[in-house]
Amino acid sequence: MNEFEFIARQLRPLATQPEALGLADDAAVLKVPQGQELVITKDALVEGVHFIGDEAPVLIAQKALRVNLSDCAAMGAKPYGYFLALMLSEALDEHWLQEFTEGLARDQQYYGLSLLGGDTTRTFGSFALSITLLGLVPEGTALCRKGAKPGDGVYVTGTIGDAALGLACAKRALMDDRQTPADSFLLERYQKPEPRVELGQKLRGLATACIDISDGLVQDLGHICAASGVGAVVEWDTIPLSKAARNSDALDKNLILAGGDDYELLFTLPEDKAGQLDALQASATVTRIGKIVEGKTVRVLQDQKDITPETAGYKHF
Amino acid sequence: MNEFEFIARQLRPLATQPEALGLADDAAVLKVPQGQELVITKDALVEGVHFIGDEAPVLIAQKALRVNLSDCAAMGAKPYGYFLALMLSEALDEHWLQEFTEGLARDQQYYGLSLLGGDTTRTFGSFALSITLLGLVPEGTALCRKGAKPGDGVYVTGTIGDAALGLACAKRALMDDRQTPADSFLLERYQKPEPRVELGQKLRGLATACIDISDGLVQDLGHICAASGVGAVVEWDTIPLSKAARNSDALDKNLILAGGDDYELLFTLPEDKAGQLDALQASATVTRIGKIVEGKTVRVLQDQKDITPETAGYKHF
Repeated sequence: MNEFEFIARQLRPLATQPEALGLADDAAVLKVPQGQELVITKDALVEGVHFIGDEAPVLIAQKALRVNLSDCAAMGAKPYGYFLALMLSEALDEHWLQEFTEGLARDQQYYGLSLLGGDTTRTFGSFALSITLLGLVPEGTALCRKGAKPGDGVYVTGTIGDAALGLACAKRALMDDRQTPADSFLLERYQKPEPRVELGQKLRGLATACIDISDGLVQDLGHICAASGVGAVVEWDTIPLSKAARNSDALDKNLILAGGDDYELLFTLPEDKAGQLDALQASATVTRIGKIVEGKTVRVLQDQKDITPETAGYKHF
Repeated sequence: MNEFEFIARQLRPLATQPEALGLADDAAVLKVPQGQELVITKDALVEGVHFIGDEAPVLIAQKALRVNLSDCAAMGAKPYGYFLALMLSEALDEHWLQEFTEGLARDQQYYGLSLLGGDTTRTFGSFALSITLLGLVPEGTALCRKGAKPGDGVYVTGTIGDAALGLACAKRALMDDRQTPADSFLLERYQKPEPRVELGQKLRGLATACIDISDGLVQDLGHICAASGVGAVVEWDTIPLSKAARNSDALDKNLILAGGDDYELLFTLPEDKAGQLDALQASATVTRIGKIVEGKTVRVLQDQKDITPETAGYKHF
């Protein structure tokens, strides 16, 4: 199967919208509905950095889409379509590609996406891919990192730290085959994040600032604070942890506070709007973990003691 | 210099448009002017596949932008902005990054682009990057591969085969330091293509089909023919060659017909519009090389003999 056969057989069926021009042109051509704006995000995923490499190809495809969907959710946008650049290492064969496109197909259907275009090439190095994801928001309503105000509550969706613990499980599994049900749960949280696409859209007009937690809770909250010119105080005891995380041998405060890859939303909300949160809980569990204050630092307190980690989160270099 | 410092110091100055949100958010938010459509193209470039690796970083940046600009030109679009995903190998240091962003800056200014967003990560493998480029066209006027009709003339811009000969020079230069002025010309044609951005826009409403020559003249003409349901006949003697190509030791018909990386435009035009070509010649030299016929094959003739190469062009795997 060469490049053109792969595109025709595996990728073209994923290009369900006319804008993709059947992947048979140099670019896609698309019209944005009046009154809407495009939200565009682009992420790269590299073997050995963003995934281990021996994951099921279905999961790699899903994770690649989902980290981008999470960025889209953080802006309050409705997902629309995506472009895919595949840099395939020699080791990946036809069967692998089939499984990979199966993963794309599943998530396309689940999240209402269409493949719009991209590029496929071989690489002599590690496998890598890049996705550019497009979403739509009504004009002027996109959620940004800028906008948090002193007095706003700080909220997160779901539970925090599972993915970092899951990665620890995955590394341990390379040495030891025993895996408890809790390990499997944490590993799945790392390998198959659940972007809060529905909740993100409901936060439009409600949240004053929003980001997704990809590089670590404290660091990502720091990004909101830097963009908004404020500080924040987080109460350790209020951070929502899963049962598996609470019981994990690897549980470590720094892993919870600075571990990445959770892809939960982190947002701020004026106190007078807190009553509207009940309507959101159907989309995802939302928990208040602290508040925005004057200043410019993020502090984490436990029993009034400062336990802010020195390393706030993940840096890619 | 870590990831965030690199973004703040080197990349943020390139994000000159408000849509980029200062590269300080999860995504860019952009509004498409009424009556316009977005043309979006995405390419990946990998060390060892699309460039040798020891090129000046300025040139690598420019080539990455230009191959995407060429796709944009082939659709008749006016370039607008781009997203950049950088996958940096260990070998690339701060100085390299500075030179690379200098290359982006130069071409941004020359082509009227702004950096809109993206992602930066390390890789343990080869250096790779992906660019997603956005352009604008008035609604319904994008040029496509589909639309060529029997009787249309087949035209190319510039000269053909220089880039393939330039790559041959580059490979030879690895063994032998002597380089003639002609070698330098050919090498520059390979390393620093000139996307026909202005001409592409002038072809709107004129050309019946258009593509850029990235994988080889015969193969790319084959793409137009497949999309349009037609065949084509090319006259070898009319294919425009540069003086350096004509005099090159490495000159070989297959290299001209099936070599890639020229990034010239290849388009079709009804005979009754041929008179309008004069107005285009100010943007780039345009040469008629053949015509569209009934059927579905591309044939190259020299003195009425069929010299169509067996391998029509480059496949990435």
